[in-house]
Amino acid sequence: MEFDLIERIRRRTDTQRDDVRTGIGDDAAIVAVPAGRELAVAIDTLVEGVHFPVGTSPEDIGWKALAVNLSDLAAMGATPAWALLALSTPDGSPAFFDGLADGFAQLAGSYRLALIGGDTTRGPLTVTVAVHGFTSPGEALLRSGARVGDIVMVTGTLGDAAAGLRCLGEPDVAPYAALIERLNRPVPRVSAGQALRGIATACIDISDGLVADLGHICAASGVGATIDAPMLPRSSALFSHFDDAVALDFALSGGDDYELCFTVPADRAATMTADLARVGCGVTRIGRIVEGQGVRVLDAAGNVLSPSHTGWNHFAS
Amino acid sequence: MEFDLIERIRRRTDTQRDDVRTGIGDDAAIVAVPAGRELAVAIDTLVEGVHFPVGTSPEDIGWKALAVNLSDLAAMGATPAWALLALSTPDGSPAFFDGLADGFAQLAGSYRLALIGGDTTRGPLTVTVAVHGFTSPGEALLRSGARVGDIVMVTGTLGDAAAGLRCLGEPDVAPYAALIERLNRPVPRVSAGQALRGIATACIDISDGLVADLGHICAASGVGATIDAPMLPRSSALFSHFDDAVALDFALSGGDDYELCFTVPADRAATMTADLARVGCGVTRIGRIVEGQGVRVLDAAGNVLSPSHTGWNHFAS
Repeated sequence: MEFDLIERIRRRTDTQRDDVRTGIGDDAAIVAVPAGRELAVAIDTLVEGVHFPVGTSPEDIGWKALAVNLSDLAAMGATPAWALLALSTPDGSPAFFDGLADGFAQLAGSYRLALIGGDTTRGPLTVTVAVHGFTSPGEALLRSGARVGDIVMVTGTLGDAAAGLRCLGEPDVAPYAALIERLNRPVPRVSAGQALRGIATACIDISDGLVADLGHICAASGVGATIDAPMLPRSSALFSHFDDAVALDFALSGGDDYELCFTVPADRAATMTADLARVGCGVTRIGRIVEGQGVRVLDAAGNVLSPSHTGWNHFAS
Repeated sequence: MEFDLIERIRRRTDTQRDDVRTGIGDDAAIVAVPAGRELAVAIDTLVEGVHFPVGTSPEDIGWKALAVNLSDLAAMGATPAWALLALSTPDGSPAFFDGLADGFAQLAGSYRLALIGGDTTRGPLTVTVAVHGFTSPGEALLRSGARVGDIVMVTGTLGDAAAGLRCLGEPDVAPYAALIERLNRPVPRVSAGQALRGIATACIDISDGLVADLGHICAASGVGATIDAPMLPRSSALFSHFDDAVALDFALSGGDDYELCFTVPADRAATMTADLARVGCGVTRIGRIVEGQGVRVLDAAGNVLSPSHTGWNHFAS
């Protein structure tokens, strides 16, 4: 039973990679990092009822468990290579395993990612994925490089996933499909992260909320940041269902967007916007790096706003 | 809160490794594999009530979560380098985190293992660890190399952990301390695994039980195996609390021993026993590889025994 899910995923992905010397089925996988490359490694756990609502489809769980990890690689500018998956579940049904394998494999296939190992056990529903990607020495996008005067930018739109979570309680969720899709099927910004190498001075993916995650860049870089609230990119789906104040709150502190927030020297912004457009990724200038510490949010008149809360802390919530 | 446990472990281990370019605190760690080496990677989850009993101390949980993963590296003959830890827990108390960090760090320190990343979240108590170790190309100990005529050997003694689990139900557990220690504080056979490189034809660690795990070697190698039951190494602690039949059952099918079971050509056995003695590891010849498939257990008269069950399957149990 132990390799059942793992085997189902392997059959669906079937990615042949020369760098996988021994794949699934031994005590450990044996892999080779290409000469001159370094390895980016991340791990993240999704827990039912904490990171995804009870009732989320196994397809969405499989997709999201990989997506949140690929988002960490995207934030480093790394190229995905291999993953491990550890599942604990009370549901040993073939339908559950097939669904989870489908969702995981759909996303993995986009990146020629190979599943190289894993573990399945009976227990409460939690999915842990560890991912590995390649970077060149000195090239990884860290949180610590933001400098006073840099501008702050984000990819895509913010707040949709938090709005989708709110909408799940509605009697009819059909009108909110676009928002719920952002919650359940986040698309990691892998190509965008790679395009930012050598240009962005700092980068992070937005998992806990913009204010909280930009705060991590500020803390690591020893700087502060201001955000211009009116500039925050928000989708038409968000505005069609929520008023301005709620949409702003979702954009500032809603988690699970998995967009990239990054800093660039002001004279590089135009080049960078063109680079991201080439990989199909919209980007918006939302603020700037300043002296001091922490993140301040300014309204259209330049007054400081106090968000209702500053980011979704999985542990504190 | 997210980096709380991870930070506690980092403070306790504080292993400086040149191959860790960016450690804990960014979206991913950046590490470098030494030139000419390949990477062994494994992941395992422990779930409360499945892999360790409710009431197990946080120190023992932290130790065991790393130990079972290092045991996978040991079975490949790999040298441990880095680990990631993902914890889900309902108990956010400093005492719990300190205990878990203590147990993890005690074992990590023995191997100069660096914790390079992790994730802490609220949820049911599960601990997932992913480990990375180094091997040289072609050198890893696989399950697939056993050949007819090889002899089958195991390190240490078998059955103690299963006996320890049984004893936890006793009103006074003090007399069973040695057995319970084997259950809660398994010592991965890392040095033994390294000493087997270039000698053993196949190797596995015994997590599910001897018959089940040797069965994995047989399946991967396309061979069968016979075990001579009277030869199975069992501790005096085991024999002092259990009769022969129960001790045999624990040794054949009890999980959680984390000894190595391996095969060697008959003419290499003596050298190999001396090599393992040099790293302080006892080893016992318990059987041989034969044509066919599956594992047969023979009594002193050479008759086939039927074990009461063939290995502890976490999912089926």
